[in-house]
Amino acid sequence: MVTENPGGARAVARCDALRVAPYSDMEGGLFRAYLTPAYAAAQGAVAGWMEAAGMRVHVDAAANLIGRYDGHLGHAPALVIGSHLDSVRDGGPYDGPLGIMLGIEAVAALHAQGRRLPFPIEVYAFGDEEGSRFPAAMLTSRAVAGTLDVAALDITDTAGVTLAQALATTPDYLSAARAPDTTLAYLEAHIEQGPVLEADGLAVGTVTGIAAQLRYAVTVKGMAGHAGTATMRLRRDALAGAAAMVLAVEQIARADNSDVVATVGRLEALPGAPNVIPGEVRFTIDVRSGAEDRRNAVAEAIRARIDEIATARGLELAIALIHDLAASPSDPALMDMMDAALAAAGQPVRRLVSGAGHDAMNMAALCPTAMLFIRCREGISHNPAEHVEPEDAQVALQVMLGFIERLGESVVA
Amino acid sequence: MVTENPGGARAVARCDALRVAPYSDMEGGLFRAYLTPAYAAAQGAVAGWMEAAGMRVHVDAAANLIGRYDGHLGHAPALVIGSHLDSVRDGGPYDGPLGIMLGIEAVAALHAQGRRLPFPIEVYAFGDEEGSRFPAAMLTSRAVAGTLDVAALDITDTAGVTLAQALATTPDYLSAARAPDTTLAYLEAHIEQGPVLEADGLAVGTVTGIAAQLRYAVTVKGMAGHAGTATMRLRRDALAGAAAMVLAVEQIARADNSDVVATVGRLEALPGAPNVIPGEVRFTIDVRSGAEDRRNAVAEAIRARIDEIATARGLELAIALIHDLAASPSDPALMDMMDAALAAAGQPVRRLVSGAGHDAMNMAALCPTAMLFIRCREGISHNPAEHVEPEDAQVALQVMLGFIERLGESVVA
Repeated sequence: MVTENPGGARAVARCDALRVAPYSDMEGGLFRAYLTPAYAAAQGAVAGWMEAAGMRVHVDAAANLIGRYDGHLGHAPALVIGSHLDSVRDGGPYDGPLGIMLGIEAVAALHAQGRRLPFPIEVYAFGDEEGSRFPAAMLTSRAVAGTLDVAALDITDTAGVTLAQALATTPDYLSAARAPDTTLAYLEAHIEQGPVLEADGLAVGTVTGIAAQLRYAVTVKGMAGHAGTATMRLRRDALAGAAAMVLAVEQIARADNSDVVATVGRLEALPGAPNVIPGEVRFTIDVRSGAEDRRNAVAEAIRARIDEIATARGLELAIALIHDLAASPSDPALMDMMDAALAAAGQPVRRLVSGAGHDAMNMAALCPTAMLFIRCREGISHNPAEHVEPEDAQVALQVMLGFIERLGESVVA
Repeated sequence: MVTENPGGARAVARCDALRVAPYSDMEGGLFRAYLTPAYAAAQGAVAGWMEAAGMRVHVDAAANLIGRYDGHLGHAPALVIGSHLDSVRDGGPYDGPLGIMLGIEAVAALHAQGRRLPFPIEVYAFGDEEGSRFPAAMLTSRAVAGTLDVAALDITDTAGVTLAQALATTPDYLSAARAPDTTLAYLEAHIEQGPVLEADGLAVGTVTGIAAQLRYAVTVKGMAGHAGTATMRLRRDALAGAAAMVLAVEQIARADNSDVVATVGRLEALPGAPNVIPGEVRFTIDVRSGAEDRRNAVAEAIRARIDEIATARGLELAIALIHDLAASPSDPALMDMMDAALAAAGQPVRRLVSGAGHDAMNMAALCPTAMLFIRCREGISHNPAEHVEPEDAQVALQVMLGFIERLGESVVA
């Protein structure tokens, strides 16, 4: 199902249109947080585009904007296509909105042909994924999935405004939850925010799931000393030990030769004077993989190796587990449909894991989920330099339409 | 020349006496900065001890306290025995004062025997070695050596007091310089401030000189990225690269198997978030050796190796030279005398370089210099836990007397 209508280019152009006032609350850059004036303005624009695409529009109790395109069967469970409308401060225009715009374009293409599927399509513009305003993230997709606890709503932004005050109306926030059995599947298109597709020369790829994540805080203690008076053989240099550990983290993750990634992102050496041998180093280790067992095996190998390094160097070692987030795998049958849609669009089939979290990980509690990643230049995101080629967005739109087609066939079958 | 008088123990006890008020300006710890009330009080106590040891006392234009013990030849050039009376904030009692007290004890031992050498002995209590008050270090030994520039005196402490105001009187500071040909040699005993003697089970050792020092500031730039979305093979992780460089610094210095020490004391990883691959790392490298050519060869090997690492990892590298301090070697003939004195005192002969700077490095501009290092517990210094065994100080005193004896013989010969 190839459309002549350059909906991909229009989706990109609409994201670009939303990067300035009144759709941004930041001078010279994009900042659109949940329940702000910029957010309200963007909802207004998107609602208009949804209606133009043939959808009926409403806002739910969590202030998500929803456009519905009926199917030819009256009350069948819906395909939900979603992504988020909010941004980080000084962010890029495509992280979030592009998935919404492509959902609208998919419906617009069907509507232009007068096509109805055996299921309704509901396009969700989620309000809070980034957590840019309140000290919580993905509030709105959790509300829709029915996994949000009422206690999570007792939050206040940095200006002292509570979530309840920001909502203006006082509905039952948790009533944004979709009723059981009303959802057939969830589809989310999103920029990759990483360099894999670009490196492989691919416009799009099938996402196998959201990676499982472990995070550790490591403290290494040696003996501080004078950089001039302590001979090499008598040192217990906490930084040299930590350096060996940083390399071990990299080497073990690389050697796994899988989707596992491991990162030391923060490292502090104390006391931090050029003429003093560091006596203490603190650093973090972040380990992720689409498969928890692989993640755990790599994390265990890293822990064992840094323990060996500490022992060999006479250093004290303390490792604290900070986060342990489970994986959120995509649905296997939906991934096969996505692969088939990729092939039908003339694209090489490529599967990749998402190292970052997305609304799909919450929607997985509600229904089978699928994600399509779109190449972004140099993997740059959360940055004004974020860039997507309109041609790639057009490929994504074709793949989404192919996916919808195949989902329709599977429902009828 | 073994003395029965436990002068070493007395020298240690006198240092201990000076660690509290009125000789310290810090509650619960030792802080004695140049030209402070604590400094004046300590000068008073030391002057009394000098006089009791048979010396005539005066204060020079740089506020150094000097005790003179005449020789049996009227106007012969003097042996200067010196060290510093000032301390760092919350410092230890022996770093500096012990060398003065041992000089006084050496004279006291000679005086008790009615011995006169063929040269006068002048014991200097230098006022500023640590640079604890004014933004300059070793002001007073530089003044005595005649290497201080008048422009260096235009300094102000953190309270806004100028050096001229702190001096109270307004003499010509530079007139503290010793006249040419009035100085035969300079001898300084000092705690090692490092772990070498303790590791080798030795009380004292002959210092071969003050190490030559190079210091570099290194900047490594890679590509920041999301810790979840950037696969291992596509990363240009500035911290992993810097870690390989830190290990290279350690390995190359160790492999030299000499007195060379190399240290990465300060390291910052940016942006420093657990979920972001570091895009930039800045660190320092400090390289020291008693021999400049060995220091330079190791520094060159380090530079070459970290350049290779940067190239192999696709990282940008910038290396800036911050310091290049020449070595200050001890006089070979004086080192031989010190070794002989060690052997005569029943001590194994051990030579070691000083990685830290001392007043001797300035006095080297005036005359041949020698230094004797004294073991201190765990190499700890600049810390209230600084500790010296009185027995070790007694050994040092015996060695100093043996050195003076041999210097006398060489003058007569």
